[in-house]
Amino acid sequence: MQAAAPVRKKDIRTEQKIEKVLSKMTLDEKIGQMTELSIDVLGSVVNGEFQLNKDKLHEAIGKFKVGSVLNAPGPVAQSREKWQEIIGEIQSVSMKEIGIPCIYGLDQNHGTTYTLDGTFFPQNINVGASFNPQLAYEAARITAYETRASNCPWTYSPTVDMARDPRWPRVWENYGEDCLVNSIMGSFAVRGFQGDDPNNIPADRIATSVKHYMGYSMARTGKDRTPAYIPISELREKCFAPFKECVEAGALTIMVNSGSINGVPVHANYDLLTQWLKEDLKWDGMLVTDWADINNLYTREHIAADKKEAIQIAINAGIDMAMEPYDLNFCTLLKELVQEGKVPMSRIDDAVRRVLRLKFRLGLFDRPNTQSADYPLFGGREHAEVALRTAEESQILLKNKDNILPLASGKKILVTGPNANSMRCLNGGWSYTWQGHLADRFAGKYNTIYEALCHKFGSGNVSLEQGVTYKPEGSYTEENEPEIEKAVEAARNVDVIIACIGENSYCETPGNLSDLAISANQRELVKALATTGKPIILILNEGRPRIISDIEPLAKGIINILLPGNYGGDALANIIAGDVNPSAKMPYTYPRNQAELTTYDYRVSEEMDKMEGVYDYDAVVSVQWPFGFGLSYTSFEYHNFRVNATSFTADDELHFSVDVTNRGDRAGKEAVMLFSRDLVASLTPENRRLRAFDKVELQPGETKTVTLSIKGSDLAFVGADGKWVLEKGDFRMQSGNQTLNVTCSQTKKWMTPNR
Amino acid sequence: MQAAAPVRKKDIRTEQKIEKVLSKMTLDEKIGQMTELSIDVLGSVVNGEFQLNKDKLHEAIGKFKVGSVLNAPGPVAQSREKWQEIIGEIQSVSMKEIGIPCIYGLDQNHGTTYTLDGTFFPQNINVGASFNPQLAYEAARITAYETRASNCPWTYSPTVDMARDPRWPRVWENYGEDCLVNSIMGSFAVRGFQGDDPNNIPADRIATSVKHYMGYSMARTGKDRTPAYIPISELREKCFAPFKECVEAGALTIMVNSGSINGVPVHANYDLLTQWLKEDLKWDGMLVTDWADINNLYTREHIAADKKEAIQIAINAGIDMAMEPYDLNFCTLLKELVQEGKVPMSRIDDAVRRVLRLKFRLGLFDRPNTQSADYPLFGGREHAEVALRTAEESQILLKNKDNILPLASGKKILVTGPNANSMRCLNGGWSYTWQGHLADRFAGKYNTIYEALCHKFGSGNVSLEQGVTYKPEGSYTEENEPEIEKAVEAARNVDVIIACIGENSYCETPGNLSDLAISANQRELVKALATTGKPIILILNEGRPRIISDIEPLAKGIINILLPGNYGGDALANIIAGDVNPSAKMPYTYPRNQAELTTYDYRVSEEMDKMEGVYDYDAVVSVQWPFGFGLSYTSFEYHNFRVNATSFTADDELHFSVDVTNRGDRAGKEAVMLFSRDLVASLTPENRRLRAFDKVELQPGETKTVTLSIKGSDLAFVGADGKWVLEKGDFRMQSGNQTLNVTCSQTKKWMTPNR
Repeated sequence: MQAAAPVRKKDIRTEQKIEKVLSKMTLDEKIGQMTELSIDVLGSVVNGEFQLNKDKLHEAIGKFKVGSVLNAPGPVAQSREKWQEIIGEIQSVSMKEIGIPCIYGLDQNHGTTYTLDGTFFPQNINVGASFNPQLAYEAARITAYETRASNCPWTYSPTVDMARDPRWPRVWENYGEDCLVNSIMGSFAVRGFQGDDPNNIPADRIATSVKHYMGYSMARTGKDRTPAYIPISELREKCFAPFKECVEAGALTIMVNSGSINGVPVHANYDLLTQWLKEDLKWDGMLVTDWADINNLYTREHIAADKKEAIQIAINAGIDMAMEPYDLNFCTLLKELVQEGKVPMSRIDDAVRRVLRLKFRLGLFDRPNTQSADYPLFGGREHAEVALRTAEESQILLKNKDNILPLASGKKILVTGPNANSMRCLNGGWSYTWQGHLADRFAGKYNTIYEALCHKFGSGNVSLEQGVTYKPEGSYTEENEPEIEKAVEAARNVDVIIACIGENSYCETPGNLSDLAISANQRELVKALATTGKPIILILNEGRPRIISDIEPLAKGIINILLPGNYGGDALANIIAGDVNPSAKMPYTYPRNQAELTTYDYRVSEEMDKMEGVYDYDAVVSVQWPFGFGLSYTSFEYHNFRVNATSFTADDELHFSVDVTNRGDRAGKEAVMLFSRDLVASLTPENRRLRAFDKVELQPGETKTVTLSIKGSDLAFVGADGKWVLEKGDFRMQSGNQTLNVTCSQTKKWMTPNR
Repeated sequence: MQAAAPVRKKDIRTEQKIEKVLSKMTLDEKIGQMTELSIDVLGSVVNGEFQLNKDKLHEAIGKFKVGSVLNAPGPVAQSREKWQEIIGEIQSVSMKEIGIPCIYGLDQNHGTTYTLDGTFFPQNINVGASFNPQLAYEAARITAYETRASNCPWTYSPTVDMARDPRWPRVWENYGEDCLVNSIMGSFAVRGFQGDDPNNIPADRIATSVKHYMGYSMARTGKDRTPAYIPISELREKCFAPFKECVEAGALTIMVNSGSINGVPVHANYDLLTQWLKEDLKWDGMLVTDWADINNLYTREHIAADKKEAIQIAINAGIDMAMEPYDLNFCTLLKELVQEGKVPMSRIDDAVRRVLRLKFRLGLFDRPNTQSADYPLFGGREHAEVALRTAEESQILLKNKDNILPLASGKKILVTGPNANSMRCLNGGWSYTWQGHLADRFAGKYNTIYEALCHKFGSGNVSLEQGVTYKPEGSYTEENEPEIEKAVEAARNVDVIIACIGENSYCETPGNLSDLAISANQRELVKALATTGKPIILILNEGRPRIISDIEPLAKGIINILLPGNYGGDALANIIAGDVNPSAKMPYTYPRNQAELTTYDYRVSEEMDKMEGVYDYDAVVSVQWPFGFGLSYTSFEYHNFRVNATSFTADDELHFSVDVTNRGDRAGKEAVMLFSRDLVASLTPENRRLRAFDKVELQPGETKTVTLSIKGSDLAFVGADGKWVLEKGDFRMQSGNQTLNVTCSQTKKWMTPNR
């Protein structure tokens, strides 16, 4: 399944309007359009409720001409009514004071993060695990609709950084570790958010900000916002790919990586921001910084001596809008820089055109506000059904010894573990708050795992004794004094133990870790429960793969539910009961050991057979579960793998077909994947690369032919010189247990763009 | 202390001799000179003793004209007499059959690895910890002398890869994590091995092979010989630096990194091998592969379709001699490649010139053999004293709560732990065998820690109960069933517990690990011992820093002895008794946690203070002990830090002086270090960089002025464009607790070489 190319014609009328507005703007007004403030500086909390302050509004918009505001006050989710009030007032002041609508932005990262009573979807890591791009599309479409109900036209989503390091606290915000999955899911999300005509975003769609451009996920120490070191070949081939795909899907704005790559902060990297993105791709969208990141060029990265120099560097590198949360001095300093000739007027005009283009495309000049009443499906049943289906398709069955699952009705179940009864755990970060720590306050009407299992199996059959609990609204690492013996005692009276372990919610740097093993209390809980001899089903509910190699052998069944959102408990209960057949697959490599973290697409020399002779060099890649792994309650047979042509060149289309048969007695869905391996290449080739995938549903005994099509050039890689190259020679293609070879007959080299 | 520049004039007579020999050589003879075989293919073991086989010798040297042989048969250390026999016979056949002497090479990596009864020094990691380059020089000088006593003129040493990743199994073969320490120690070792005139190596010196060129230590997963990803700035600024320094010190040969960097196997990297090393540095030495590494281009790296293509790629990239251990087909295939025009004759002639140059410089044409009788100091007292002194200066006192150390005589001591009574553990790998696993067979006359403590404190005061033991000659990870209770019982009767923990010996890929924590048995041993309430002194005896954060708080004293060699037990006893005042400092960063491995020279944004506002971004670098940390039994005060000029340009000399006073009541040595920090730079600057160091000895109350001199250009870095740059602006210099700022007044940029 590939994203259809959206309309990308230049809209001449829009361009004319931009020029007309621009020609009348003062320098102050231009700089104001490049400035984005936090809502917190425009008001204050009075009697527990946020109120805009007219003087502050006037100063920011009237005096400094600020063109954008972001974030939820607090930041805590607000009602639709409150958003209507806040954003409506800002728009009113903007239109009156500068005649240009403001653009408001929110991190609606897995649904309506910051709008109360809206629909929450599973996090992107789940969407990746579903291997069903239509779910990415639907989640984005519905989130756009509900965000417009909040009178907000712009979100900082989707995230396509690729979850390359399991230590990173933002793994779960991405569609997994693979660049193709992030490219496809990201581009489907862009189309879901924006629709298919980026020149004219309808009133039920919003602008995306694809983030975080680029290489953000690969910090050397795995800690958020710390330095990454990435060779140019990997930058262009993998990190750039999802952004390119999202640009081609029409993404209107892109947010920049807060870290540095090879010592260069990305907010200061002209090559990446201006050359690769704006010039090479001819992208006419808008680049926005991440939170206060221009300031960070001098406070944190020390590549500028002071704030003014930081602004000069960032704007000249290609930043169009500064997310400058608190300090209007940004405007004053940028104005000085322009007057001193240190930032050319042409750069300012370019940036402002991009801001205005965004606002015109969103229709904000004609329609600065949208009304809640026009969005009757907000938070309703239709949306909930999509969220539930996404949760069901995204929970991965990893182990099912002796077919312990599904559980027959009537079984006595102990539900235990710190994640057993928490909406916070099911949702993860970006849920009502940044850290997601207040979710149980706001999501009381949804079912925790325990509640969902009670509904499914009957309260009389399901008992809860957690043994280990998190401090409910504390930092994600805080656990209460464990009561493991209580859980062990409770286990003696049941048929099966469902142990819900993992992580509490976190986001960004507060989620940094120093040890990847799951918490000691949780490991001790499972070990103690195992002494009862009762079968254990482990439910992993975690934002990233915490190491469980010492307790994995103690479980008969394992389901990795990732962060499935408000309907995640219901989805899990459906799977455990067998009402839903699991169909998700691992979107990342689950590590077995702390000191050998890797991704599935490692180069072949990462793994070497034992050498003959006196020196027995070898290396082994040992993982808990590989990328793409996932079980079903039925079994699928792959056969008759074939291709339309065994010899090809860059421009040829290759159609790989494989017959897939459901050999079990339940209907089921299967994500059919096509992998390639370049057998000999001028760079050490990768072990495997995912080249295409499609998800099909099969009734018992049914066979479907799945055809996965790629272009010859899709098998290219980026060489040491930074150029794409497709090399002559053989490629081993694989789908399921089927393999065949195809041969490229002609070497071809090219620069960006990569097709 | 800096290495004096050695004589590097071109020796015209040598060049003339080379041309004369070359002009008479057939293609077969030329290719033979480029070939190095393993000794194992030239004979076999008969009655437990290696015997050369005349037919095989004739085939290799007579027919294939092979010009080099390496390794100990087995590979196990041999007597001097056996080496005289083996190498003498090879030389005899070589001179007779081709009229060109063979060059024999051995991994004499920390002394006479492969010669019985020779002197073993501490491993290089200890030499790094001493911060005393003279010790690197002396160890190399003595090793050269004793290697010549074995009739061998060439060693694959020193190793200057930098120990950048604590997981890597070759950490201990290097001088620590810093590029300056590796540069200085490496260049002192080169001069120790070779003397000061690389054109004329005297009969008591040998040729070095500096290894492993380059970037070998930074594999992404920490596993030996697996792919590394390193930006060009880091490659040039750090990885290249020690090799450049060793080339300037006259290094005659260099061995190539077995892995890949950014996807390109280094054995196939023309830029690094030919451009950077041979052309940019105008280096006229010889490049040798590591073990079978040309084959690995097709068997492991898959950048060549077959062996012939692998040879073509490697030779054209700049390889001069193939360590082709077993397969003479190398010669046949290379000959075909020349005849087919795929490897130019000019490349062959260049390679052969380099091989012949090496042999002429070593005087092998005139003097193919050296006789044991001419080396009367072999394995004698003078050499032992240097080895003991090196061990004493290289053991790091890391903790000394309540001045538990030194121990008064008369104390009752329990010596415990798996490393308490093992010569294998003290020596590490490259000791009599590759894995060092037979050291206790061959090093019986030296003292283990237990034996040395018995000698020092009296057998009646010292008891041994190990609690945990390794399988003596097994893989390094194998431990016997622990007997922790026995050790705890024994501890009840003593005044103090000396717990010797760490690793058993290993080398290269068999030393790969999947978890960096010290073994569970050892941690349990220490925890159990702590329950006795008796004070614990931890002795860390390990090739790399195994994580001990859970047991570190249980110890009152900690000494990291690293791998101190055959005299390491005696050195430790001297330190524990207070006969020697410890003076070593950490040559690497000792990690506290598995998931946050770093080096001291991280970029400043690796560590960020908590940000003000609603998003409290932060990051912390948490380590067990930092690079450069080490205690003494006395204390040193730094004062009066000053510099000759506070403003400078690239060519200026900066002389930093600091007064250091011994404020305690014992004599002691102090490694005085000069660190810099670039306050603002166009790449995010590093937290600290070591720029110079010197070690001084101070009597109680004595003050010495230590002057550390650098050039302005030493404060440069390599920018994103791969060029060196010294930027205008301020640098904070630090020595001890003293800081001052200096200001560069003029930006300067340059390519290689870096001064």
